[in-house]
Amino acid sequence: MENFTAYNPVKLLFGQGVTGQMSNNLHSFGKRVLFLYGKGSIKNNGIYDEVIQELKLAGKEVYEFSGIKPNPSVTDARRAVRICSEKQIDLILAVGGGSVIDTAKAVAISAPEKLDPWEVFTRKVKPSKALPVIAVLTLAATGTEMNMFSVIQNEEINEKIGFGVPLMYPKQSYLDPAFTRTVSKEYTAFGIVDLIAHALENYFGSGEATLADRYVFSIVNEAIEIADPLLADPDNYDLRARMMWAATNALNGYTNYGRKSGDFAVHALGHSISALFDTPHGATLSIIYPAWLKFISAIVPERLVKLGEVVFNDASIDGCINGLTNLFRSLNSPVTLEEAQIVGKDREILKQLWINTKAAGYTYEISTVDYDRILSLI
Amino acid sequence: MENFTAYNPVKLLFGQGVTGQMSNNLHSFGKRVLFLYGKGSIKNNGIYDEVIQELKLAGKEVYEFSGIKPNPSVTDARRAVRICSEKQIDLILAVGGGSVIDTAKAVAISAPEKLDPWEVFTRKVKPSKALPVIAVLTLAATGTEMNMFSVIQNEEINEKIGFGVPLMYPKQSYLDPAFTRTVSKEYTAFGIVDLIAHALENYFGSGEATLADRYVFSIVNEAIEIADPLLADPDNYDLRARMMWAATNALNGYTNYGRKSGDFAVHALGHSISALFDTPHGATLSIIYPAWLKFISAIVPERLVKLGEVVFNDASIDGCINGLTNLFRSLNSPVTLEEAQIVGKDREILKQLWINTKAAGYTYEISTVDYDRILSLI
Repeated sequence: MENFTAYNPVKLLFGQGVTGQMSNNLHSFGKRVLFLYGKGSIKNNGIYDEVIQELKLAGKEVYEFSGIKPNPSVTDARRAVRICSEKQIDLILAVGGGSVIDTAKAVAISAPEKLDPWEVFTRKVKPSKALPVIAVLTLAATGTEMNMFSVIQNEEINEKIGFGVPLMYPKQSYLDPAFTRTVSKEYTAFGIVDLIAHALENYFGSGEATLADRYVFSIVNEAIEIADPLLADPDNYDLRARMMWAATNALNGYTNYGRKSGDFAVHALGHSISALFDTPHGATLSIIYPAWLKFISAIVPERLVKLGEVVFNDASIDGCINGLTNLFRSLNSPVTLEEAQIVGKDREILKQLWINTKAAGYTYEISTVDYDRILSLI
Repeated sequence: MENFTAYNPVKLLFGQGVTGQMSNNLHSFGKRVLFLYGKGSIKNNGIYDEVIQELKLAGKEVYEFSGIKPNPSVTDARRAVRICSEKQIDLILAVGGGSVIDTAKAVAISAPEKLDPWEVFTRKVKPSKALPVIAVLTLAATGTEMNMFSVIQNEEINEKIGFGVPLMYPKQSYLDPAFTRTVSKEYTAFGIVDLIAHALENYFGSGEATLADRYVFSIVNEAIEIADPLLADPDNYDLRARMMWAATNALNGYTNYGRKSGDFAVHALGHSISALFDTPHGATLSIIYPAWLKFISAIVPERLVKLGEVVFNDASIDGCINGLTNLFRSLNSPVTLEEAQIVGKDREILKQLWINTKAAGYTYEISTVDYDRILSLI
């Protein structure tokens, strides 16, 4: 077991109606709020009105910034950083899925010292302050609501990279599973893929952490247990709640404590697919993961066998790979590049991006990546 | 799934040598430190010297308060509260097991407003401030290092009760598994009983929380896996580390999130045994738990069957009860009052204390307690 620091100061309020507690919890923050959201679906389902009402009750001055896209862009983050300066923003409120919250974190860590978010994310400058972030989550998937990480994309150079420092933990996160009832089946399935990938990328990290392994199995088994019933009954509150909590737990620290590190190669390789072809994040993970398992099966066979045994009831390498592939297939998430219409020359373009960016600078704990070999397995 | 708030701001540093980071982490606290510890074993194993060295490096003024007993007493807490006033203490540093840290928490929540700790714990006064607490853990068992709870005993009236508010979270906790290597086999076993009891008391609470259930099983299975090897090889760092982390996880919130509440009747009934006969805490739990399972087996049979299946490989009520009883027996922890030399008239005295104190005011989620029936089952 490796040394580690367990620290997660996020105050996470979970359950039906919790957003109604927000106004009572905002007193300690300043008056001027930047309210970030996406394409405006929160205006159709009542969430926008509810949040505005809470901000009014708390006596805040609200500045809106909408239109954050899936695969959040550094251009948006830069614009929001300028607004924070101009309007002397005290608090960032992010209402949406991972992309909105990740943008909020990128803005929060850049704004106080007027830094360029891309320079922060590429480790060229080191921030020492952050604005506080409050998150209202409307999509269960990334776990960003309870961790210090953020991923943003630079459209100009087709790079998408992650960054995290403790200053980037949200102060408060509001998780109302009812808010996710309107998420489409397709994106619900991608969310399940994403949370499973997060749990497994910790499991396939380096260092022995037996309790963290058990938590990974718990989360993956929980996700598998709810997947079919939820996709058949997307309006079911309790299944939505179980998915939402599982997604938070997959990447809030506990699946990693005791390891040297997780191995986020699958996410890194997937990010390049999104950056090039705007493929949904979850879909990129289901495409890469089976190939990645084949690639590492010679390096850590015992980890695959154990996962196969506990999760897929088949204590073998093939049992593990087939189990995960079939699971993703059952979710209608693509497991090959072809299924995502990435064929012919595009495969070469993808490989070239991987090589040029070193798949965006992730460190790999298990092995350096052989891009040709990975591509041959997809 | 019930609504809940997940919030645990403790910064927990885990691993060999982590106490050496303490001096760097103390800058934000005031100068005057009350250093609480127990009977002085930390002077024999080097921990005292190491901690004093860190405090010196951080430029602190140190006031010592030693002699805290297992089953910590309100008398000690009251004396320490007075010292905090006299010496204008800024920070409490607790070095020891649950009793020392629980005393520190009781002092911390009482000192700023000069409250009587027993009045705080019996909910007669409501504290609004607390001194910061830093913990260095030397015994894996209670989980107090990462939660807001404390249990203290009033020797005058033979009561032992628990209390918790978010102000009582330690600011930092240092967990070096090497510090627990000298814990006797007997107390190591009691620690394993305690952590299993914590996990199970959450499991037997009310409300459906599937992921929390999986975490309970993870922790109990982890404890079972390490129990025999650790008792056979008490010097083994990795096994000590696994036990220490499992104990923290049993009661840091995650085994409960999504339930209405845990049911801490076993602890409440056990506390009375300690208060009367000074029986080690872990031993009281192994005495009560099998009887408690029999008592509730008619009320929540499906919970016992599930626990039997996942943990003891026997999906039946008897499989569950026998599994847990045999586990405690294998740890040489008593499973009857007789094995703890509590016989004859003492059984009646115990029952009377339970009745007089209502077993110290715990709420029971599953059922009110029938003391005669419980006693007949032990």
